[in-house]
Amino acid sequence: MTIRLTTILLTMLLAALIAGGDQPDSKLTGMPKPVYAEDGSLLRPDSYEEWMHVGTSLGLGYSEEAASDPPGSFQNVYIQREAYAHYQSTGRFPEKTMLALAIHQRRQKQSIARQGFFQGDLTALELAVKDSSRFPDGWAYFDFGAKTRDSAQPLPKDRCFSCHQKSAGDDNVFVQFYPVLRGVKAR
Amino acid sequence: MTIRLTTILLTMLLAALIAGGDQPDSKLTGMPKPVYAEDGSLLRPDSYEEWMHVGTSLGLGYSEEAASDPPGSFQNVYIQREAYAHYQSTGRFPEKTMLALAIHQRRQKQSIARQGFFQGDLTALELAVKDSSRFPDGWAYFDFGAKTRDSAQPLPKDRCFSCHQKSAGDDNVFVQFYPVLRGVKAR
Repeated sequence: MTIRLTTILLTMLLAALIAGGDQPDSKLTGMPKPVYAEDGSLLRPDSYEEWMHVGTSLGLGYSEEAASDPPGSFQNVYIQREAYAHYQSTGRFPEKTMLALAIHQRRQKQSIARQGFFQGDLTALELAVKDSSRFPDGWAYFDFGAKTRDSAQPLPKDRCFSCHQKSAGDDNVFVQFYPVLRGVKAR
Repeated sequence: MTIRLTTILLTMLLAALIAGGDQPDSKLTGMPKPVYAEDGSLLRPDSYEEWMHVGTSLGLGYSEEAASDPPGSFQNVYIQREAYAHYQSTGRFPEKTMLALAIHQRRQKQSIARQGFFQGDLTALELAVKDSSRFPDGWAYFDFGAKTRDSAQPLPKDRCFSCHQKSAGDDNVFVQFYPVLRGVKAR
């Protein structure tokens, strides 16, 4: 009995030591990774609201033509906390980086609000994923709709990729629009 | 030797079981707490951008009079992740809850942006703190300016408290304006 218990506890201790000693990669070990279905589609991540918020825009658009519903919708952008820490310390987005673009209704004049806008329901969730093992261009982009799609195939390159590759401030990411990413490399 | 090792491992196992079983408080143990100077002023928290983002507004105002600079500034709101988890599971904001209101410039037409607005530099940081051991009303409010003040005294009650007490959706917090807080109790 004592020997069996000792064996069990020793095994537990060994497991704890091994887990605790895995320092070099440990910062990225717990990072939520992209998960794919058998057909290669990306599964919708459910925890993106708990990731690190990098900034929010309202009605941001790149066309000279006026938007159809000025001033448009809110767009919250989130990145896995571990990917952010890695970017902050190395200046590089690690493989398996995900950026979530959560699009919310623009609401006004409810409750005591008389001026300005606040965020209503989610209307769409889009994902940018860096995964060179799957995407020859490094990054791919996905659209999950509001809460309608549990998985999504990569969007055609002309939907997001081309513009991100051409105009994003750093490695396909529009760091220039987001306070906590902008200037990381300069700091 | 075997008996001593068994004792050590048993002690470790017991400690692990106790720590693991201490569910009610353990979730709040690592929560960043408000820190006060000797004169009672609140020290500026430096990690608020890594807290949980609950929502963003633009130019939100409660007066019927038009804002002086429509559509105003962006306001990002963050809460400690542990306080959010506690609210989600119990419907109550725990003591030492902090909500940070980070006010950012509204910027437009930079880089490839032609429509809409994105976030510029931080212009002010305000804090709401729930700490009944210090504030008879439960909550107090603080203004740290842009990056000018390292500590702040509670604001007079007519600056923030009165309106929060009267019109906030739940326990002085304007949950009605923030997607991840709104409806937590209903869910």
